Amino acid sequence: MRKICLLGSTGSIGTQTLDVIRSHKEEFQLIGLSFGRNVALGLKQIQEFRPKVVCVYSKEEANLLYPDLPPGVKVVYGEQGLVEVAAVCEADILVNAVMGSIGLKPTLGAIESGKDIAIANKETLVTAGHLVTEMAKKYEVELIPVDSEHSAIYQCLHGDVEKDVDRLILTASGGSFRDRSLSELEGVTVEEALNHPNWEMGAKITIDSATMMNKGLEVIEARWLFNIPYEKIDVILHKESIIHSMVEYIDGSVLAHLGTPDMRVPIQYALSKPKRLVLHGGQKLNLWEVGSLHFEKPNMERYRCLKMAFEAGKIGGSAPTVLNAANEIAVSEFLNGNIPFLGIDQLVEKALSDHSPTSDPSLDEIVMIDEETRNKIKSYLN
Amino acid sequence: MRKICLLGSTGSIGTQTLDVIRSHKEEFQLIGLSFGRNVALGLKQIQEFRPKVVCVYSKEEANLLYPDLPPGVKVVYGEQGLVEVAAVCEADILVNAVMGSIGLKPTLGAIESGKDIAIANKETLVTAGHLVTEMAKKYEVELIPVDSEHSAIYQCLHGDVEKDVDRLILTASGGSFRDRSLSELEGVTVEEALNHPNWEMGAKITIDSATMMNKGLEVIEARWLFNIPYEKIDVILHKESIIHSMVEYIDGSVLAHLGTPDMRVPIQYALSKPKRLVLHGGQKLNLWEVGSLHFEKPNMERYRCLKMAFEAGKIGGSAPTVLNAANEIAVSEFLNGNIPFLGIDQLVEKALSDHSPTSDPSLDEIVMIDEETRNKIKSYLN
Repeated sequence: MRKICLLGSTGSIGTQTLDVIRSHKEEFQLIGLSFGRNVALGLKQIQEFRPKVVCVYSKEEANLLYPDLPPGVKVVYGEQGLVEVAAVCEADILVNAVMGSIGLKPTLGAIESGKDIAIANKETLVTAGHLVTEMAKKYEVELIPVDSEHSAIYQCLHGDVEKDVDRLILTASGGSFRDRSLSELEGVTVEEALNHPNWEMGAKITIDSATMMNKGLEVIEARWLFNIPYEKIDVILHKESIIHSMVEYIDGSVLAHLGTPDMRVPIQYALSKPKRLVLHGGQKLNLWEVGSLHFEKPNMERYRCLKMAFEAGKIGGSAPTVLNAANEIAVSEFLNGNIPFLGIDQLVEKALSDHSPTSDPSLDEIVMIDEETRNKIKSYLN
Repeated sequence: MRKICLLGSTGSIGTQTLDVIRSHKEEFQLIGLSFGRNVALGLKQIQEFRPKVVCVYSKEEANLLYPDLPPGVKVVYGEQGLVEVAAVCEADILVNAVMGSIGLKPTLGAIESGKDIAIANKETLVTAGHLVTEMAKKYEVELIPVDSEHSAIYQCLHGDVEKDVDRLILTASGGSFRDRSLSELEGVTVEEALNHPNWEMGAKITIDSATMMNKGLEVIEARWLFNIPYEKIDVILHKESIIHSMVEYIDGSVLAHLGTPDMRVPIQYALSKPKRLVLHGGQKLNLWEVGSLHFEKPNMERYRCLKMAFEAGKIGGSAPTVLNAANEIAVSEFLNGNIPFLGIDQLVEKALSDHSPTSDPSLDEIVMIDEETRNKIKSYLN
């Protein structure tokens, strides 16, 4: 029985993590969870899974919970509460599925308390990969990817030795606008951008998929998760999203992970590995029904966010924090109708060029640079 | 340093095995080798690799070797010599790359002497899978596949537990005539049949590829190598031969092995595993240059040899021996111009329907049934 603590229970990854736990009650037990403001859904989850401790956004949400709370459930709130739920509860593994850089501190706390970390929160590795991997090594905990691409690579690698790996190849669908040229992206609407061809995901990640910033952040994550230089990471456009990613070895062998798009597969594997469990209600891949798979080289001028992510990753230090924070605000401004789609690229580019990178930033520096970048982006728009 | 004994050194797999050994002299040492009648090439190999013991077809070939033999090389010959070279020499691993059922006895002998077996000889597992796997278990040696399909599966599996595997998916190019209907196969020539689109191989295996008997034999091999029932083995047509085979797990994950067609990859991995070595002169796979991969369901009425192989496999006992022996003679008769291409199917079908299968046959029974089948096929033709 693996005891699980889940941060971000009401989001897309969170609810699918609960699906997995629900369908394998003999394997998994939910010990702690956190959510933000969706008290209605969060309360249902608490009533179903009876965790020992729950963290919510603020005292306000905590007060909304109390009347209907089952006995024996402790409620905490806010940033400090999130750190508490991640570190204190007796879980074996922390699933970090919160959105944004708020997931960073609780993750570091969970590592210190000896938990393995299933990472679905990109910012944790993008902004603080050097700190997180160093601490994971020190406390001998494992960082297990939940993203379908990184899980694919993780599954292909099994425990293969780093020196045998020649290249990681991340596949990318190309997002909602993959068939449009750069000039055709002028004036696209929020609604169009949210219409992803293969995966159903949250709004932020769907936009990141359209700009391919999502893939760029994944490249940076891959660098840290698999301890591999950027020169050995490639991105390939693969519109069917059937091959989730690949590993190329020095002997020319390429191992690939394939499947129908279903986030529960990597979530479940992160919880069950090294063994596998039946995926209830999952749809098996049938390649002769799919018929064909296609591959293209991504045009780096077309996908400028991807290019900038590689650049920021190679610069290292605080540059990825700026990339990520600038992108978060830019996407939010696009979703709110304040900037056009191509404004996302431009804001990120401006933020990066205005920044003088700090090497090996501390947690406090990362938090500060993240904050500064967000404010700077907002100031550009005023 | 792994010490290698190679049976079948002058054939396609044999010469490529020597390429691998040659390019990694720091890793591999050739201790013993065998070849049949190609004394000219065999002598060159002996002079280059200086094995301790060599087996040739008969006393005649041995006599041809003596004048040019380097000092310290022992020569044996015939079936008994083959068993001797496989069992006696101090190798860690036996590469069985001989053609036909002559590879069976030496393999069993090598297992008894504690060597791991790299199997490139189909008949060993097709006709005596039950004996070979049982003996490998008893003597705690490993059977390592050399066929690209089985090596692909072996690499995808790493050491995964059997119960997590839902299905093995062998890919098949469809061979020389994959774009022709059954009726268009009337009267095809030997030359046309030998023109395989993806792989350069020996004549027998190229014909087996065109009839898909090759894939059928591989299905039977897979059953034994991976201890999996026939119901969990599928064959899919994949004309590019880029995906070499796949493993589907109970959670819906599919792991695949991809690469440019190069038999040295699986040969080298069989010798180097679990580590990998650089493949000198190998061509890396570039999927964006390949552009697309295609998949089709094989038509079992079109590929009757494949259908018969599944049937013979499921019947078990001596049925696969009959399938294999009948096919060997039928292909040889086709290559000699004595029967048409579609006569291969027909002869195998007749041999199977005329046979009353023995369950759990001994080695002697297998040898006898093999012999009887060959004679029977020849008698059909007179």
